[in-house]
Amino acid sequence: MVTQEFSVVGKRMPDVSGVEKVTGAAKFTSDIYLPGMLIGKVLHSPHAHARIVNIDTSKAERLPGVEAVVTCKDVPKKQYTGCLMNLQSYSGIEVWGVHDVRVLDEKVRYVGDAVAAVAAVNEKVAEEALELIDVEYEQLPAVFDEIEAMKEGAPRIHDVVQRRQDDGTPGDEAVERNIGVHVAHKPVGDVEKGFQEAGYIIEERAYTSKQRQAPLETFQCIASFNAEGKLTLWTQFQVPNLMKRMIAYVFDMPVGMVRAKGEYAGGGFGAGLHLFRVPLCIALAKKSGKPVKLIYSRREEFTDRPTRETFGPYTFKMGVKKDGTITAVDRKVVAMAGAYVEFSGLSSLIATSVGNTVYRRQNYKAEADVVYTNKLPSGAMRGFGNPGETFIREQVMDEAAEKIGMDALEFRLKNLCQLGDPGTFGPDFPLTSIALDECIKIGAEKIGWKEKHGKKKEGVRRKGVGVSCMAHNSGAWPVHVEHSSAHIKFNEDASIVLTVYPATIGTGAYTSLAQVAAEVLGLPFEDVHVVWGDTDVTLWETGSHASRTMYIIGSAVYEAATEAKGKLLNRAAKKLGVAADELDIKDRRIYVKANPGKGIAAAEITKEAIYSHYDVEQFTGSSSYRPSNSPPPYQAVFTEVEVDTETGEVKVLKMVVVSDSGRAINPMTVEGQMEGGAAQGMGYALWEEPVMDTTTGQVLTDDFDTYKIATTLDMPELDTVLVEQPDPTGPFGAKGVGEPGAVNQAASIANAIYDAVGVRIWELPITPEKVIKALKEKKGK
Amino acid sequence: MVTQEFSVVGKRMPDVSGVEKVTGAAKFTSDIYLPGMLIGKVLHSPHAHARIVNIDTSKAERLPGVEAVVTCKDVPKKQYTGCLMNLQSYSGIEVWGVHDVRVLDEKVRYVGDAVAAVAAVNEKVAEEALELIDVEYEQLPAVFDEIEAMKEGAPRIHDVVQRRQDDGTPGDEAVERNIGVHVAHKPVGDVEKGFQEAGYIIEERAYTSKQRQAPLETFQCIASFNAEGKLTLWTQFQVPNLMKRMIAYVFDMPVGMVRAKGEYAGGGFGAGLHLFRVPLCIALAKKSGKPVKLIYSRREEFTDRPTRETFGPYTFKMGVKKDGTITAVDRKVVAMAGAYVEFSGLSSLIATSVGNTVYRRQNYKAEADVVYTNKLPSGAMRGFGNPGETFIREQVMDEAAEKIGMDALEFRLKNLCQLGDPGTFGPDFPLTSIALDECIKIGAEKIGWKEKHGKKKEGVRRKGVGVSCMAHNSGAWPVHVEHSSAHIKFNEDASIVLTVYPATIGTGAYTSLAQVAAEVLGLPFEDVHVVWGDTDVTLWETGSHASRTMYIIGSAVYEAATEAKGKLLNRAAKKLGVAADELDIKDRRIYVKANPGKGIAAAEITKEAIYSHYDVEQFTGSSSYRPSNSPPPYQAVFTEVEVDTETGEVKVLKMVVVSDSGRAINPMTVEGQMEGGAAQGMGYALWEEPVMDTTTGQVLTDDFDTYKIATTLDMPELDTVLVEQPDPTGPFGAKGVGEPGAVNQAASIANAIYDAVGVRIWELPITPEKVIKALKEKKGK
Repeated sequence: MVTQEFSVVGKRMPDVSGVEKVTGAAKFTSDIYLPGMLIGKVLHSPHAHARIVNIDTSKAERLPGVEAVVTCKDVPKKQYTGCLMNLQSYSGIEVWGVHDVRVLDEKVRYVGDAVAAVAAVNEKVAEEALELIDVEYEQLPAVFDEIEAMKEGAPRIHDVVQRRQDDGTPGDEAVERNIGVHVAHKPVGDVEKGFQEAGYIIEERAYTSKQRQAPLETFQCIASFNAEGKLTLWTQFQVPNLMKRMIAYVFDMPVGMVRAKGEYAGGGFGAGLHLFRVPLCIALAKKSGKPVKLIYSRREEFTDRPTRETFGPYTFKMGVKKDGTITAVDRKVVAMAGAYVEFSGLSSLIATSVGNTVYRRQNYKAEADVVYTNKLPSGAMRGFGNPGETFIREQVMDEAAEKIGMDALEFRLKNLCQLGDPGTFGPDFPLTSIALDECIKIGAEKIGWKEKHGKKKEGVRRKGVGVSCMAHNSGAWPVHVEHSSAHIKFNEDASIVLTVYPATIGTGAYTSLAQVAAEVLGLPFEDVHVVWGDTDVTLWETGSHASRTMYIIGSAVYEAATEAKGKLLNRAAKKLGVAADELDIKDRRIYVKANPGKGIAAAEITKEAIYSHYDVEQFTGSSSYRPSNSPPPYQAVFTEVEVDTETGEVKVLKMVVVSDSGRAINPMTVEGQMEGGAAQGMGYALWEEPVMDTTTGQVLTDDFDTYKIATTLDMPELDTVLVEQPDPTGPFGAKGVGEPGAVNQAASIANAIYDAVGVRIWELPITPEKVIKALKEKKGK
Repeated sequence: MVTQEFSVVGKRMPDVSGVEKVTGAAKFTSDIYLPGMLIGKVLHSPHAHARIVNIDTSKAERLPGVEAVVTCKDVPKKQYTGCLMNLQSYSGIEVWGVHDVRVLDEKVRYVGDAVAAVAAVNEKVAEEALELIDVEYEQLPAVFDEIEAMKEGAPRIHDVVQRRQDDGTPGDEAVERNIGVHVAHKPVGDVEKGFQEAGYIIEERAYTSKQRQAPLETFQCIASFNAEGKLTLWTQFQVPNLMKRMIAYVFDMPVGMVRAKGEYAGGGFGAGLHLFRVPLCIALAKKSGKPVKLIYSRREEFTDRPTRETFGPYTFKMGVKKDGTITAVDRKVVAMAGAYVEFSGLSSLIATSVGNTVYRRQNYKAEADVVYTNKLPSGAMRGFGNPGETFIREQVMDEAAEKIGMDALEFRLKNLCQLGDPGTFGPDFPLTSIALDECIKIGAEKIGWKEKHGKKKEGVRRKGVGVSCMAHNSGAWPVHVEHSSAHIKFNEDASIVLTVYPATIGTGAYTSLAQVAAEVLGLPFEDVHVVWGDTDVTLWETGSHASRTMYIIGSAVYEAATEAKGKLLNRAAKKLGVAADELDIKDRRIYVKANPGKGIAAAEITKEAIYSHYDVEQFTGSSSYRPSNSPPPYQAVFTEVEVDTETGEVKVLKMVVVSDSGRAINPMTVEGQMEGGAAQGMGYALWEEPVMDTTTGQVLTDDFDTYKIATTLDMPELDTVLVEQPDPTGPFGAKGVGEPGAVNQAASIANAIYDAVGVRIWELPITPEKVIKALKEKKGK
């Protein structure tokens, strides 16, 4: 499909941070030491729901080496939300979203919630100090189930929260039935009529898993105030400018007085979108007057850090005609907020949107109740609602195909969305590229669909194949404001410095963005030097979430490079006595397009311009970019499994991931995203299960022994194929990449299990116990 | 003189780095620790002139903890010059200046010259390793006197050096009579005729002192290569981009592969213009494969670091008519190169230029021979040639006035240059401001000139008053290419980040540059955040030398701020429904000039632009600036001294410094420069004297016990007055500031001594011995 010839784009460039990372030279937040820096530690609640009657910190404060102890008396009273994406609108910060969090509150709402914090000269003293804090709690009844929580007389997690009022300011509002947010899409078409026209109606209920982002690097934060009161922060930001804005709001500071600096991060997967305990670290720095480093242990990571959005029941109802036309889709969702709404409102919104660009469905609607309980809050995680919706939708698709006696692939192909159809956010933003049909065809061929699917299986161990298809987004426009920036300067030797600030979470974004710049400018890859990691140095940037980095920041880089190139060619044109538009650059050489033998080294122009006696110039380009669409990346995942009918064990034999993310700027990176995503998706499907003691609310799976994530040894034969249909709105045709990788696995495996043994599992993760239970129930029928 | 009303410019703003520096929070190069970093140490020559026959490093290499030993075999063979100002032209690097230095050579040319270097895990091991290096020297005859060195048969310091050839490439050229450079100005007018028309001719010879820059922080350098071979350097750069270029030349690297990062520096005074031992530190990092930190001891600072340009004899011949008209000036100068030419050619050029803009002299010329000896090379230091020329010129002016029976001030005022007269670099660059007449009048009043000068003195201790006047430059244009840059971005709260890269040598430049930006943009000072200290982050910048910072970088800041302001007002204009040029900003508010009640908060526009749904924008401004002139800052210094005729001791009772640096952007900073300069100038005049053993070439004054610099206790009553005549070409009327402070003291004190006791001292420093000797000689006459 790639027809254009590129020099750097499309090449398999190793990530520029690779050597530094494997040699240990790469710097992470934990590698930063500031003069006089203290170590912070957090005191967590042992109770799921309690009022703090009294805190006596006097003993802790007297411990030598302790420099600050903070409780709710020492922190701003302001309510806010840790969901930084709520800030992606002009009037955002004060009002958007549900403001139900405080830096430290007088109430704790889950086991692990923060009660107080200390800063001391070292970790040992800080930990001793925690033990010296006397807290008197008044325990309150707790609730851990969303359905229970909505019932009359259930414990109230929040009485009043702040929401946007009509006049644009935040205002108090009572919480009814523990529903933190109610998400309701405006219905498209006439859903009831659609169901009436259907030959068959399928309705299912699913329950998804509270998967953990589980980055290798635990939460790290350093907060440091200088003499003028300017705050510098280091943490694993994915959206540093939004974080600055929220910090400024919480601490009543001008935004310009907050500076966010980033080093490499050991993974993100959405965890870096969350304000989390950054304000607490700041409160310690403020009170102690010294820089404070706060590092979470793995146990704290499991018990206090927000987890993936979780749905249950997620009710999916679909009507389909006998000819295979989908006539209506309706979804009713109960979503887990946990103790605070955080990301659960937005992820419910996305979950109930992303299916609209996979299959045509003339009539559809969705509603979600996001419910408070005394559990960990819901954070952001790769896929952001999509894996849950896909898990149920793609099983329902298979059921419908079976009902009407159509091959599951044929049924999907018949209903696929087409070019020009409404995009995720409506008909004003139509689909500009879709290669899902080709993804399905390639994957079917590779998994051996025709030979294997729907055949009768026998024996103790039975094989089956399954499929799942999905669409995601390339950024959140126009739901959210999207603003990305890039700055380019030419050095005197015609190498360039590209200044950008995507997240540093290991996605290789710098490498791919450098490829875009190099391609536009006709330079070899090694001539691009990238500066990142400092909000004072970089232009304003939304950051990395919603698979936006390559599509949106990549476009900003494209624009900035084009501007810098124009200036360079203008000066070269004078020197060469031609018009600038007659020129181009290749291999560091500016040449006349109609007469390539005529030209000049780019470095000769850049050096002359910088050292000119009379006409100094340094060629620069700058872009403040917003997209005009959010073209969905597509993906089909085919899986072959073997199910042991005696033990219920599911073994994934092979997985074929066929991905349409538009042009692959760096195919190695895109494949890497698909491969890592597949592992994460398999964990979601089969193994990752946070277990909570439902009487106390204590998370029992608080390390990697009790909480299993996929390792390379767990991975099946994995075949990753990129179908590169360039999207006309992306830089060199690229679309979003990061999140699709982890979305399809659960449904694809579930469908393969059904193909193997004829049972459907509607609750994640798909453990052997659930398979055995389903097999028994089937037998019993 | 200040007629315009400003909000921030002209205010006495404390330097923003002040609190950080006094609290110890400020970071210097020595505060940087990199993972695996080694400590470098240099082996210095014990001989003034020797050929290295053999170096055996095997024992040193075997010492545990030693990771690299470098000798001349391990370093590039390329010849270069450490005088980075030679790079201020397009074709500069390869050819300009005298290339007579190597990273390590097979010959040593002064006691202290580098022979080898080691990098080891710590300082102790590195020092032990130095002692284990066996060097076999063949000693050569040495010469320590410039006149001797020019004689037939004198030891030859360099046989062949590289100079620019006609075709623009460097070529070998034999050195004749140890003359490294011959500087010859094209004569202006007919000098011989001028002398013929003179009523009186005065001719004197002076010898100046090898003053040390003596920054509180000794030389520090860190060199670190990353996996891609990119080199990052930290040192006390004054011209980081020129340093990058020379490093790239010496090590055959692309300039873009060198990154210079700066922290605060503990003084510069010109020392940071010198490449010095940076290449040696790089050679250690390259060979060891690890980051290397090289820190000089105070002793090394005295024995190996280039010292101030030194002249002797400096012959000054002036013809004057009986009416006081100066008819001709001729200067013949012998300048000390020391072992390498380095800055001595350029400083001789400047020394013999700067007098041209003080007094009108229709016919003048000058020549200088810059002579190699086996002494420390001549580096750059504040004033750069000017203090030497001024020391003799201003005494000759006094002598001439006395000869024709005219008051010394009246004689000066009569001959002062006037607006429109040719500038330092000729009639194409005429004088655009001069307030020296007013400086003289104010100073005379303050010192009590009329009452005190020329009166008969009696007793053992005799008082006298003296004056000295000077002009300097505001940058080196058009002699050198001058290119300064600034970048400004508006944050969402309408605060700004100003990105610039002047030197961080303690001049308070950031504070003053921030004031310029704040004034242009109608913002309070605290809304300006300054980013500096990284050549990848900042735009190309010549740096800080030749008193250029405020005049040239300040202009770049002015331009960048004006551009950013224009963009902001454009958007505001649409909102307010007026034309952009009807708007201005004050106190963070954009208002309609004709109707100040109508307006909008700047932050409302900046926030809306960043978070706009459809029309995102971040207001930025960028400037690549070159000046069109170099208006001289002027200064008159009046001194009252008391001379003890029995001991020869000179006590400075009072010093009045009246300065014309155009508009003082920050009067506190300008005064600070004048006060610090006065101390440095007094040291030059009276105390600072590097003493060398003239048989061995060993520098004997190698610490602050034996080499006396002025302390606050040595300072007299000091009265600093700023005469603020705005220069039309400078930002808000500012001219150069830094160097003038240290130029006038020696001549002013010498003239006061003559006024007190009737003897003239022509050799610096003016020690009691020299005064006594002169008094005896006078008596003997």
